[in-house]
Amino acid sequence: MSLPFYAIIMAGGSGTRLWPLSRQTRPKQALKLIGERTMFQLAVDRLLPIMLPERIIVVTTGDLVEQLSAQTPGLPRRNFVIEPEGRGTAPVIGLGASYAKHLAGGGTVVVACLTADHYIKDVSKFQSVLLAAATVAEGGQIVTLGIRPSFPSTGFGYIQRGEPLAMAGGFAVYQAKAFKEKPDEAMAAAFVADGLHSWNSGMFIWTTDRVSAEFSRQLSETAARLAEVARTFDTPGMSETLRRVWPTVPRQTIDYGIMEGAAEVAVLPVDIGWSDVGSWASLLDILEPDEAGNVLMGGDHLTFDTTGTLINSERLVAAIGLSNLVVVNTDDALLICPRNRSQEVKRVVEKLQQQKRNGYL
Amino acid sequence: MSLPFYAIIMAGGSGTRLWPLSRQTRPKQALKLIGERTMFQLAVDRLLPIMLPERIIVVTTGDLVEQLSAQTPGLPRRNFVIEPEGRGTAPVIGLGASYAKHLAGGGTVVVACLTADHYIKDVSKFQSVLLAAATVAEGGQIVTLGIRPSFPSTGFGYIQRGEPLAMAGGFAVYQAKAFKEKPDEAMAAAFVADGLHSWNSGMFIWTTDRVSAEFSRQLSETAARLAEVARTFDTPGMSETLRRVWPTVPRQTIDYGIMEGAAEVAVLPVDIGWSDVGSWASLLDILEPDEAGNVLMGGDHLTFDTTGTLINSERLVAAIGLSNLVVVNTDDALLICPRNRSQEVKRVVEKLQQQKRNGYL
Repeated sequence: MSLPFYAIIMAGGSGTRLWPLSRQTRPKQALKLIGERTMFQLAVDRLLPIMLPERIIVVTTGDLVEQLSAQTPGLPRRNFVIEPEGRGTAPVIGLGASYAKHLAGGGTVVVACLTADHYIKDVSKFQSVLLAAATVAEGGQIVTLGIRPSFPSTGFGYIQRGEPLAMAGGFAVYQAKAFKEKPDEAMAAAFVADGLHSWNSGMFIWTTDRVSAEFSRQLSETAARLAEVARTFDTPGMSETLRRVWPTVPRQTIDYGIMEGAAEVAVLPVDIGWSDVGSWASLLDILEPDEAGNVLMGGDHLTFDTTGTLINSERLVAAIGLSNLVVVNTDDALLICPRNRSQEVKRVVEKLQQQKRNGYL
Repeated sequence: MSLPFYAIIMAGGSGTRLWPLSRQTRPKQALKLIGERTMFQLAVDRLLPIMLPERIIVVTTGDLVEQLSAQTPGLPRRNFVIEPEGRGTAPVIGLGASYAKHLAGGGTVVVACLTADHYIKDVSKFQSVLLAAATVAEGGQIVTLGIRPSFPSTGFGYIQRGEPLAMAGGFAVYQAKAFKEKPDEAMAAAFVADGLHSWNSGMFIWTTDRVSAEFSRQLSETAARLAEVARTFDTPGMSETLRRVWPTVPRQTIDYGIMEGAAEVAVLPVDIGWSDVGSWASLLDILEPDEAGNVLMGGDHLTFDTTGTLINSERLVAAIGLSNLVVVNTDDALLICPRNRSQEVKRVVEKLQQQKRNGYL
C-alpha cells in the first residue's frame, strides 16, 4: 500500500431499536453495550492499531459531536465534522472523503467508510481485512466488505459476488455482480444457500480519486455543493457554509446513489463476527451468556429459574421463572418483551411519537 | 346490642410478600394497592359508618405509628398504641382490649379484633356482619369470622363449624368445633368439599370480660404483664413501661394461646369478598382487569399483545407480548415473575436478607 490510509466513521443518526436505552440524544453509538467502551469508542479502538488518529474522521450531528469527541480524547477535535441534518449516507461520505483529502494536503488517499454502531468480534481479522481491502482499492476498485450470512436475514441488503478478482492479504476478492435490496424470506434463503451472496455491511474502501470521479459522474449536484463546503474547510466560515449548503444537498444513500451505478466494484467476503446490533435480542447472541443462557447487563440482578433472558438495568432486578425475555430498565422507562419480539420496540417508539412524548424519544 | 362497640386494628408487622413495593418501613397496610386509599385507611373507612372514631384503637409499631396516624387524621392520636416489638398476636390483642376498656372508663365493652392489611370487597355486608357478631359476643361467645373458601387453599388455617348456635342480623352463627392448621392439599380439598370449614380470617369479636377471663386462665403471665402496663395508660410513664415490660411478655399467637383452648367459641361464616392480599397475583383477582385481563397500576403503560399481566410502576412501562406476568417496578428495584409464581418473591427477600442488603428490605 503506497497511499495514506484514512477512515470515515459515520456516527450520525439516532436509532430507536435499542429503546429505552437508546434515545435521540444518546443513540446506539454512544452507549456502552459491550463491556466498558461505547460502540463508538470500540469503532475507533479497532482502527488505532492500523491508523494514525489524525487520519480518523468522524462525521456526526451537532447534537452528538461533543459527546463523541469527549469519548475519544485521542482523536483531534478538528477531525470531527458535523452533518447539520440527515441527508443520507452519500453526502456524508462525500463530505468525509473530501475532508480526508484536505487533511492529507490535497493528495490522493484511500478512505475506509465505516459504521460507528456495529459490533465486530474478531478485531484483528477486521484490521487485516481493512489493510487488504486498501491495497485492492489503490488499484481503483470500490471494495465493499460483505459479511458471510449466518442466517437468511430479511433485514439486510445482499451483495452478489461474480468472478474472482484478486487475492489480497490472504483474502479472496471478487467482482461485485449486483447489490440487492432487503429480500423476502424465500429469496433470503436462496441467497444463503447459493453461497454467492454476502450481507452488505455498509463498509467500503476506495480512493478519494474514485470518490471524486463517481460523485462527479453520478451525483454531480451533490459534488458541486460539497466543493463549495470544501473551500471553507478549516476556516471560520466552515460551519456557517455547511449549515447553509447542507439542506440543499439532494438526499441520497451511497448504495442507490453510487454503488448500483458504479463499475469496478469489488466484494471482499469476510467472517469477522459482525453484528449490526439491531435489536436487544442481538446482544444475547453477541455477548457471552452465563450458564443459564442469560445476559445480565448493568446494576445487579437476582435470578431464579431464569433462562435465555437479557436484563439491562442499573437498578436491582429480581427475576423469577423467566424464559427468553428482554428486560431493559432505565431511569424513566421499562421495556419487557419476549426475546423473539424485541424488534417490535419500534411499535413503542411510534406510539410515543404519536403521543408527542418527546422526553421518551 | 347494649355494650359499647370498639375495634382493635392490628397494624404492626412488616410483610414481605409484596416486595419490592412493601418494605419494613412501608408494609402492606401503608400501601395504596386498591384505589387511592391505603389498606389501613380502607380498614378504618370500613368501620367509621358503624363506630365512633374514638372507639377505634390501632396497635402498631413505633416505626409505623406516625405514618399511619397521618393517614387517618380523623382518629385521635391517643388511640394509637405502640407494640415495642413483635411478640405475636395474643399480647397485641390483650393490650388493645385492655386499652379499650380503659378508654371506655373501665366498663365492659365489645371489641372487634381486625386486620389492617386485608381487602374486603362487600363493605356494607361486612358492617352488618360485625354488628351481628357483636350481639352474639355480648352473650359471652368469642365470635370468629370464617370466610367461605373459594378454593382449597393450603395457605390459611380453617375453622370447622359444629352445631347451629344462633341467628343474628340474618346470619347463621355456629359453634366453632375445631381450629385447624394450614392443611395439606388433600385435606384442604376435603375441607372445601364438606362445606363445614371456613378460612380463619383472623377477625373475631368478644367482650373485654371474656378477654380478661381467657387471658387470666390461659395466658396468666401475659395477663400480669399487661396489667402492669395498664396501670400507666395515658400517663407519661406508659411508653417507658411498655418498652420495659413488652420484651418479657411470652410470644404467642391468639389462635394457639387462646382460641384452641377456649370453650364457647362461635364461627360466623361469611362471604364478603375477603382477600388477605397475600401476593401480587391476588391483586389480579381483586382488582378489575381491563379488557385484556391486565391490571395496570400507577404510572403509565403502553401494552401490546399483553394479557393477564399485573404491572405496578410509577414510571413508563412498555410491555410487548407478555402473558400472565407480574411486573413491579419501584425506585430502586424491579420484580418480574409469572403470575402463578408471585409467592416466590420470598426467595428474593431471603436472598437479600442473607446478603444483608437492608436497604432493599
